[in-house]
Amino acid sequence: MTTGDLDNLRVVLVAARNPLNIGAAARAMSNFGVQRLRVVNPYEVAFREARSAVGAAGLLAKAEQYETVAEAVAECRLVVGTTVAGARRDLQHRLQRLDEGGRAIKRRLKTGPVALLFGSERFGLSNDELSHCQWVMRIPTREEHGSMNLGQAVAVCLYELVRGQKTATAKAAPVKKEKTSATSGDVERLTQALFKVLGGSGYVKPRAAAATEENLRRMIRRMELNANDTDMWLGMLRQIDWKLGANEKDK
Amino acid sequence: MTTGDLDNLRVVLVAARNPLNIGAAARAMSNFGVQRLRVVNPYEVAFREARSAVGAAGLLAKAEQYETVAEAVAECRLVVGTTVAGARRDLQHRLQRLDEGGRAIKRRLKTGPVALLFGSERFGLSNDELSHCQWVMRIPTREEHGSMNLGQAVAVCLYELVRGQKTATAKAAPVKKEKTSATSGDVERLTQALFKVLGGSGYVKPRAAAATEENLRRMIRRMELNANDTDMWLGMLRQIDWKLGANEKDK
Repeated sequence: MTTGDLDNLRVVLVAARNPLNIGAAARAMSNFGVQRLRVVNPYEVAFREARSAVGAAGLLAKAEQYETVAEAVAECRLVVGTTVAGARRDLQHRLQRLDEGGRAIKRRLKTGPVALLFGSERFGLSNDELSHCQWVMRIPTREEHGSMNLGQAVAVCLYELVRGQKTATAKAAPVKKEKTSATSGDVERLTQALFKVLGGSGYVKPRAAAATEENLRRMIRRMELNANDTDMWLGMLRQIDWKLGANEKDK
Repeated sequence: MTTGDLDNLRVVLVAARNPLNIGAAARAMSNFGVQRLRVVNPYEVAFREARSAVGAAGLLAKAEQYETVAEAVAECRLVVGTTVAGARRDLQHRLQRLDEGGRAIKRRLKTGPVALLFGSERFGLSNDELSHCQWVMRIPTREEHGSMNLGQAVAVCLYELVRGQKTATAKAAPVKKEKTSATSGDVERLTQALFKVLGGSGYVKPRAAAATEENLRRMIRRMELNANDTDMWLGMLRQIDWKLGANEKDK
């Protein structure tokens, strides 16, 4: 991995409660050479003044603020959630060890933007927030004391990404060409298109709409579609949607 | 390395200025299953009340206090200092990368007590303090922003020691079993169901039907669906197909 690859990384803090923790995360990012910070719905809007951002005030000032996870990860081609031991026993996602997940992320950083999501200090990432992730990495904390400080969690994950760099960079093995992954924005458009078609066809029960949408979002992310296939799916769904609508009108 | 090995590790904070940082270090220790904290000449004697020691108050209460580094590391068979990039250009010690040093420490933890030293937030470890160390590990921070938060530095170093452990905790949450892959038969049923819906919606041009079917077949195989997702897709497509058919009849 090269320093350039890290330009492709976006650290996304979702619903962080404490501005000091946002500052601490910014500091860890600066330590390890990661510049792009995004915050989704911070609890404290004045987070940019966090005093704990020693040496990272510039990074914090440039942090981008979003209202939804979907917008914060829109252009990313891989979206990875983070969790700790013992949390989220009901996790619906593929769970990777941090060291294994780190390897996968490093590969993907060579080819496009990757988002790494951290949840709120209190609750971590919610099911809804996680539904935007392809998979989840677990920081190997003890079961008995899983809950981790946000700045420390960010530091540990980013360290995993820069770890061992010296040897790795020398003459990096040529990346196996992979088809361009779809952007999260396109994948989300696909999710919405499928949800619409399913609504039109009576598959979605009104009372379970939110749960169904979440299930669809997760399922589609598991498919890890490339850009072409996403386009193809979108085309198919739009045609189906049109036909369903046209039929209704004909009645 | 086993959890027992970590009992041999002593984290030694030398001249830490801020009790909150001592608390944060304690918390990181607890997260990664390291229990023995030693402090040498803390700036604030009331460090045990640090509020940032979430979940690690017991560990902090049992912290041992020393007046000199020599006493704090007396029974240890290996003493390792820590530093960051850019600091201590005058270093007299053998310098190891954190990942390399971590391997050496893990080996030595199997046979006897090891001390890991962290210096003050402001100045790191002095020459005098370093003189108690056999060698020094460097956390791979950027040269331009080396200075690291103490709690984060401790978290990153301890993570390196537990990293890659086959789930350190005996009773770690069982990693979710990879879902069973779908059978080829089911995947083909799905292909046919999709082809039928696309036919009904006018997506498939009669002249290109064979080519479209082939494209769909390849695309669906690229998705590497598991058995559950295949079922879900089949259910959705059957509902859409039913709706398209019902609409036609209503006309």
